[in-house]
Amino acid sequence: MADSNTIRLRVFSLNCWGIRYLSKHCRERYAMIGELLSREEHDIVLLQEVWSEKDFLCLKRKLSSTHPHSHYFKSGVIGSGMATFSRHRIHDAFLYRYSLNGYPYMAHHGDWFGGKAVGMVILNIGRLAAHVYVTHLHAEYCREKDSYLPHRVVQAWELQQFIRHTSSGADLVILAGDLNLHPQDLGNRLLRTYTGLRDSYTETAKFDGCEDGITLISDNPFINPKELCPFEKGIRIDYILYKGSGRVSIQCESLSTTKGSVPDHPFPYSDHEALSADLQLQTLTQQAGGDETRAEQDCAAGKLAELVDIVTEARTEVKVGLYCAERMRYTAARTGVMGMALLLLELAIAAVPWLALRADQPFPRASFYLLGVLCFAILITTFLLYIFYSMEVKALQGAEDQMRLAVGSLQERLRGFPLAQPLNRLCRPLDGQDPCPLEPEE
Amino acid sequence: MADSNTIRLRVFSLNCWGIRYLSKHCRERYAMIGELLSREEHDIVLLQEVWSEKDFLCLKRKLSSTHPHSHYFKSGVIGSGMATFSRHRIHDAFLYRYSLNGYPYMAHHGDWFGGKAVGMVILNIGRLAAHVYVTHLHAEYCREKDSYLPHRVVQAWELQQFIRHTSSGADLVILAGDLNLHPQDLGNRLLRTYTGLRDSYTETAKFDGCEDGITLISDNPFINPKELCPFEKGIRIDYILYKGSGRVSIQCESLSTTKGSVPDHPFPYSDHEALSADLQLQTLTQQAGGDETRAEQDCAAGKLAELVDIVTEARTEVKVGLYCAERMRYTAARTGVMGMALLLLELAIAAVPWLALRADQPFPRASFYLLGVLCFAILITTFLLYIFYSMEVKALQGAEDQMRLAVGSLQERLRGFPLAQPLNRLCRPLDGQDPCPLEPEE
Repeated sequence: MADSNTIRLRVFSLNCWGIRYLSKHCRERYAMIGELLSREEHDIVLLQEVWSEKDFLCLKRKLSSTHPHSHYFKSGVIGSGMATFSRHRIHDAFLYRYSLNGYPYMAHHGDWFGGKAVGMVILNIGRLAAHVYVTHLHAEYCREKDSYLPHRVVQAWELQQFIRHTSSGADLVILAGDLNLHPQDLGNRLLRTYTGLRDSYTETAKFDGCEDGITLISDNPFINPKELCPFEKGIRIDYILYKGSGRVSIQCESLSTTKGSVPDHPFPYSDHEALSADLQLQTLTQQAGGDETRAEQDCAAGKLAELVDIVTEARTEVKVGLYCAERMRYTAARTGVMGMALLLLELAIAAVPWLALRADQPFPRASFYLLGVLCFAILITTFLLYIFYSMEVKALQGAEDQMRLAVGSLQERLRGFPLAQPLNRLCRPLDGQDPCPLEPEE
Repeated sequence: MADSNTIRLRVFSLNCWGIRYLSKHCRERYAMIGELLSREEHDIVLLQEVWSEKDFLCLKRKLSSTHPHSHYFKSGVIGSGMATFSRHRIHDAFLYRYSLNGYPYMAHHGDWFGGKAVGMVILNIGRLAAHVYVTHLHAEYCREKDSYLPHRVVQAWELQQFIRHTSSGADLVILAGDLNLHPQDLGNRLLRTYTGLRDSYTETAKFDGCEDGITLISDNPFINPKELCPFEKGIRIDYILYKGSGRVSIQCESLSTTKGSVPDHPFPYSDHEALSADLQLQTLTQQAGGDETRAEQDCAAGKLAELVDIVTEARTEVKVGLYCAERMRYTAARTGVMGMALLLLELAIAAVPWLALRADQPFPRASFYLLGVLCFAILITTFLLYIFYSMEVKALQGAEDQMRLAVGSLQERLRGFPLAQPLNRLCRPLDGQDPCPLEPEE
């Protein structure tokens, strides 16, 4: 602490890539991470992909003296993989599971089984209430043909909603994690613009780390550089974001990342680079207030207009996803009907020799049973798929409804501003069905 | 409005029992509900079990002039069934899906497919921000042997968490819906004590409705009185709850319920009775504040101590659920292994005649294929069940962790009070594993 009004807060974030028996050098890397954390004594540690609770408990034991408070977020089949360690007492924890998170049959991608979510812990830093969030969004496996894009956009939408609605009582807000979003990706813009969270990389006074702040670097020995193509050096998808409030102003004094290797160790901590941010909290003795100047109003109106554009873009993306999900559901239903028809046909074939041909010629039992099994397999699979796609459709429709509501509300607020420029650009229809987004139906 | 500081707010809640083609007189009842709502012009209407979006859209058209703002919450396979209509503009909507909601194979109960959740809409009433919640918890099918109790307790836990964390910026909070909880049930006590929400039935100045405020009455023609046994007259499971803030005080002027029949109609609106509350909002010109008196401190400490007891009780219930879920998961795994063993045995039997007996005796093809199908069915079913129970275990463990954290935090706050009575009663261990709940690990 520099003076009584200034508090220094060190935040650490790392995607640990901790899949037991599958991730390379998993145990050794956890030992290294434990060493680093107990040496560095960050105030708040936010980890992702700690898939095994045993590994969490192991870290917890190791950090019991430096970080006496911790929470492990559980969800999905395997878990959410998210853990937090803190030097400050954790008073409350809450988890929001994203409504969409990939497909269960894409088992090799595995995201669905992970139960992706955003976890929140509330802790008191001095007399300040800090709401600290950790999350891990669905991975991007192919940037050119990203079938998970609508899911990630919906996750970013729900993430910003969760943060906005649960942080009104907070003095400071911190979000860290592997967003699987590039800095200018739609989901990232949506999150930052709606919540007002600031990116520690762009805001920091001092930076020490990889070029452009990248956190998934081609030099990392656990990474296949081909997978990063066309980004030769790497990409920035891990973040520490923050914002203050009327009671606290926050500055990022410095941000550092690991650089793909660890001194005295043969391999790095993970396939992602770790982030470490030094935040300076300044408690404000008097609340900022008073009448807004015209310039401030214009700036706020500009922000609102930008937000309307971003939410509209997100809504379009969700609509594309909805179209695909509805088509997939239709395909599942049609295949199911075909399976049923095949089964009926088979039963008819079975009935015919019994009625007419009797012992005339041998009944092809093997083919009959095999075909029967095939029909049943088709029926069960398509039934499960139909249920799954119905849930996807509902979730996408729900997100789209909320987005429409939000756009309407934002435009309503915009109308309250004495704008210098006309708002014609906001009046373009979102699609053929919406006569005018300025009059949303809710 | 009585004077400039007083606002009258009328809230309506009804479980519509709107299962198309299955619920009796569904269409006629919706027409009756639409009539009632457009005649009564409540400020906020919160409906549950509006399972079909078509019915929602139909109501929306009907109420377009009286209730121009509305939102339909979508989740799960069928939907959440929750809808809200409002005379005041809805600015934002957010949905939280409960992590547990029955079992998909209990299709005749159907709760799992409904995607139970709590929906929130934010609306401005005058200059006040109202956070309005609607929910529908898992039904209780058998009170004596209620296998869904842990699920309902977790839902109540998540409901109170969601309301607490998303309402800090609210001037007033309203929750209505079919809680499927009796007034003194654990989930109900947990919800009311933790959030501070007040029950309009116990708080109202004037009540007009069924005896004891019951909302599921034996006189209702859609109800089989046997199902209500041992509660001959009926049960109270639908609620309108509310609370104010430092800026607004709320009084319930009157509460009324329907009484199982509708004048001039052959049947009632639903199998549940409708609730209608008249709330009086008084905006406070100056915030209540200043030092707490000793009596107030004792009262707050008493509340905290009560809360510790309730959360501990909930935690016990969740642990019972966890034990059952783990046992079910184990059974699924064991059955799966047996299915696999049977399959291997069958393959061995098939291999033996091919190796040794050849054309010696006819191979029992029919039995062979049937048994094969059975093995595969067992394997697939147990695999799906194992995944499902793993998710249930994770969700229950997550809720239990959060409860442990909450108890620790509450006890910490309790220690801050200069208590007249010793807190020994709070020091009893929660179970054998916890050495002392006063020193929770997080």
